[in-house]
Amino acid sequence: MESDMVKVKVPASSANLGPGFDSIGVALNLYTEISMGFIEEGLLIEVSGEDYKEIETTENNLVYKAAKKVFEKTETQYEGLKIEIKNGIPIGSGLGSSAAAIIGGMLAANELAGGILTHKEILDLAASMEGHADNVAPALNGGLNVTVFDGNTTYYVKKELEEELKFIAFTPKKLLKTEIARNILPQKIDFKDAVFNTGRSSLLTAALFSGRYDLLKIASQDMLHQKYRSKLIPEMYACFEKALEAGAYSVFLSGAGPTIMAICPEEKVKRVVYEVSKVYIDRGIDYRVYKLHCENNGAQVLKASLSI
Amino acid sequence: MESDMVKVKVPASSANLGPGFDSIGVALNLYTEISMGFIEEGLLIEVSGEDYKEIETTENNLVYKAAKKVFEKTETQYEGLKIEIKNGIPIGSGLGSSAAAIIGGMLAANELAGGILTHKEILDLAASMEGHADNVAPALNGGLNVTVFDGNTTYYVKKELEEELKFIAFTPKKLLKTEIARNILPQKIDFKDAVFNTGRSSLLTAALFSGRYDLLKIASQDMLHQKYRSKLIPEMYACFEKALEAGAYSVFLSGAGPTIMAICPEEKVKRVVYEVSKVYIDRGIDYRVYKLHCENNGAQVLKASLSI
Repeated sequence: MESDMVKVKVPASSANLGPGFDSIGVALNLYTEISMGFIEEGLLIEVSGEDYKEIETTENNLVYKAAKKVFEKTETQYEGLKIEIKNGIPIGSGLGSSAAAIIGGMLAANELAGGILTHKEILDLAASMEGHADNVAPALNGGLNVTVFDGNTTYYVKKELEEELKFIAFTPKKLLKTEIARNILPQKIDFKDAVFNTGRSSLLTAALFSGRYDLLKIASQDMLHQKYRSKLIPEMYACFEKALEAGAYSVFLSGAGPTIMAICPEEKVKRVVYEVSKVYIDRGIDYRVYKLHCENNGAQVLKASLSI
Repeated sequence: MESDMVKVKVPASSANLGPGFDSIGVALNLYTEISMGFIEEGLLIEVSGEDYKEIETTENNLVYKAAKKVFEKTETQYEGLKIEIKNGIPIGSGLGSSAAAIIGGMLAANELAGGILTHKEILDLAASMEGHADNVAPALNGGLNVTVFDGNTTYYVKKELEEELKFIAFTPKKLLKTEIARNILPQKIDFKDAVFNTGRSSLLTAALFSGRYDLLKIASQDMLHQKYRSKLIPEMYACFEKALEAGAYSVFLSGAGPTIMAICPEEKVKRVVYEVSKVYIDRGIDYRVYKLHCENNGAQVLKASLSI
C-alpha cells in the first residue's frame, strides 16, 4: 500500500519565559515541515535544513516515535512509512524542536489515519510524551499558551500576541540535552523561592494578557531553574545584563537553554542584538541570532490526505 | 487644633485564591468605614460594627499605626487624633480586615495631611507594613489584583470581574492569627510543589483574565500553603469537597483562613451554601456566610478634608 504524502508545518516555541516553569510557552515564527506517507515497506526518513545532521534517521527519530503513537491509538495498519523532515528549528537549543517534531509527527500520522484523533487528543498525547505542555501546546495552538498538564489532560488558555513584540533568540552552536538541564535542578527548594516564582509567573501572565510590557522585566524574574542552569550556560547572566541595558523588556533562558531570549520592541532590536552578540563574540562562542515574533497560528496541515 | 473629620470606605479582600500565595487578591463588597480628624489632645478611638470587641482602641490599633506612618512621612504635626471605625469585615478571618485597616488609616491620614502622598506611595507604604500586596492592592485599587511586592515597590495588574461571579465566604467564629498560620508553613518544599503552584497560579490568572471559569477548579489547586494550614482548620477539606460537589467553580482558603471561599455562578449559590453549611453544623462550628462579589471600585474618600 502506498499513499500520497501529507504535509504539516509546525512552529518553534519558547517555554518558561523566566518564571513560568513547565507552564508558559509561546509559538514563534520558525517552522519545521514534515511530510509523511505510506510506502511498501520499511522506514525511510529524509532530513534536510537546520542542524539536519543531528536528526536521527532510525526508529529513534522523534517524528517517527510520535507518529507511531498515533498509528497505535488509531489502530492504523501499514507496511512501510516515509518521512521527510525539512527542519527550520535549531536542535537541542531550547526552541521547541522536540515539541515540533512530536506535534508534526502526530498531526501528519493522524491525517494519514483519516483524522480520527481530535485536537485535544493530539495535545494530550503529545503532552504525555513530553511530560508537560509548555512547548507542545503553543506548537499545536499557536500564540501564548498558559498551560497545566496534570499527567492526563492539558488545560490551557491561549492569548494572541502582537507581531510588534519581538522575540530575539540567541542560540549558541552547542547542544544542551534537556535531560542534563533537568537533572541539574534540585529536589528541594526554599519556600520563599516558590513564592517568588508563583508571584512572578502570575504577574507575567497578567502583563502579557493585558499588554503591560512595562512589567515584563520584574515579571520575568525566576528563582526556580535559571540560577541552576547558569552552571551549564556560563554566559547567561552577562547576556541578561546586556539585553536589559540595551532596552529589552525582559530576557530569559528559552526552555532549558542554551538559547537566551530577549523580548523587546522593534526599535530596540538592533541595539539588543549588538550588545548581546558582543558577549558571545568576546567569549568565542559560535552563535546564531533569530529575530522572531509570536506565531498566532498553530501547526497547520499544508497538504491533506487525498483518501479522506 | 481641631479639624473636620474625613471619612474613607475600604473593601474587604480575599488573597491567594488557592495557588496565588502572597500574590493574587480580589476586593469584595464588604466594607469598613473609617473617620478621622484632629482633636486637641490624645488618641480617641471609637469602634463599632462586626467583631468590634476585637479591635484595639489603644496605640496598638492598626488604623492608628498606619495613619502614624503617613503623618511621619508627610511630616504632619498634630496634637490629638480621633478615629471612628465602623467595621464591616470580620477580624482575623482571612478577609483582609488588616489590609482594610491599613489602607483606611493611610488614606484618611493622607487626606488630613493635605493629600501629599500619591496612590502609588500609599500602596507601597501599605505593602511594606504587610510584607506583601495581595490584600492591600485590591483594598486600595478594587478588582482582581495580580501583584508582586519586591520589598520596596508594588507591581500589579488590575482586572475587573463581573458581579455575576459570586464569592461565598464561610467564616467560622474563631480567630486565626495570620502569624500562627504563617509559622506553620515549612522553610523548604519539594521542587515539584513549586512547579505545581507556578503553573496553577499562572493558569488561574489566565482563566480570570479571560473569563474561562471552567478552568478555575484545576487552576485553584495549591500545594504551597493549604495542606499545612489544614492542620489549623480541620474542616477545610470537607468544605472543599462539598463546595465542588455542589457546583462551585473553585474553593480555597481565603488568605490564611479560617474563611473558606467558594466561587460560583448565581444559580449555584443556594446549593453551595447549603452543602458547605452542613459541614460546619455537623461539626458544631459557629460560622457566618457572606454572599459577595468582586468590588471593582477600590477604597474611596467619602468625605474629604475641608482644608484642602
